[in-house]
Amino acid sequence: MTLQSQIKYCRNCGTAVAYRVPDDGDVRERAVCPACNTIHYENPLNVVGTVPFLDDKVLLCKRNIEPRWGKWTLPAGFMELGETTAQGAARETDEEAGAQIEMQSLFTVLSVPRVGQVHMFYLARLLSDKFAPGHETIEARLFTEAEIPWDEIAFRTVKETLEQYFADRRAGSFGVHNIDIA
Amino acid sequence: MTLQSQIKYCRNCGTAVAYRVPDDGDVRERAVCPACNTIHYENPLNVVGTVPFLDDKVLLCKRNIEPRWGKWTLPAGFMELGETTAQGAARETDEEAGAQIEMQSLFTVLSVPRVGQVHMFYLARLLSDKFAPGHETIEARLFTEAEIPWDEIAFRTVKETLEQYFADRRAGSFGVHNIDIA
Repeated sequence: MTLQSQIKYCRNCGTAVAYRVPDDGDVRERAVCPACNTIHYENPLNVVGTVPFLDDKVLLCKRNIEPRWGKWTLPAGFMELGETTAQGAARETDEEAGAQIEMQSLFTVLSVPRVGQVHMFYLARLLSDKFAPGHETIEARLFTEAEIPWDEIAFRTVKETLEQYFADRRAGSFGVHNIDIA
Repeated sequence: MTLQSQIKYCRNCGTAVAYRVPDDGDVRERAVCPACNTIHYENPLNVVGTVPFLDDKVLLCKRNIEPRWGKWTLPAGFMELGETTAQGAARETDEEAGAQIEMQSLFTVLSVPRVGQVHMFYLARLLSDKFAPGHETIEARLFTEAEIPWDEIAFRTVKETLEQYFADRRAGSFGVHNIDIA
């Protein structure tokens, strides 16, 4: 999950920008170009993914990239322009796990204000237990709740989503959960 | 809802960028700097807002800004860094309507891939029928379902959210709705 560097130069004309509150009624500092007046907005990013499940098991991917190399995650990545949240979640599941899935409903929406991200996970029924992980994944495998490597989960949002998944599964009913990660 | 201009110059060093597929396994064209190799990612933006309700009425704001000047909208705007989706929705409700609310649950999550946006609306119980709209709003007032100016609603996501709100209200149960706007 690459974080972008701070803005030093104007995207429109290449002049060095200054961080200040624009004159248009805004109340926040933005990178403003002193030459062409372009205001550069920086906003939260969406990470979209799935909870791929088969019977009593969930698919996790062992990360082959930083950050959290070698830790386990649900398939997820940055949402791209031109796609819906569900399309992005399906794309990431294909790229990271090579898993055949039937997309189901939105399951968690998690805000992570500390890093300026919103994570969204969809339930996804696995149609096969054969996976073809891409270059970002060392290994993709199924885990029962008891087998989940809880101390080796890459991200808080993934841990919260997995905990909620097994809780809802025990309760026999899946909701949509909106969670804030302090 | 300002859309950012295309990237012409590197944010890190001010050199003119070229759009190409990076050499890191990516499959999409990005603005890549030929001098310092910074890759500039462009991703969807989140718009967060509320459905402020009081008895059988909903609060709408008449827009004093482009686009859709003079059209009616639910209070909403771009999510900022450092806030949760719910905090952003509450902030926008304060800025655009000056409404006193009690934030409730997430209600709609709408993807608008054509413009690279995700809109999220929360239910919000109004604590007062007195409003203090900011400079972005000409007028803030309450509408029953029959009074809603359906042909004068600023955005498809607002119309879909209002329709779903009154449908759920009639059904006596509010869900979380994930909707794609083609």
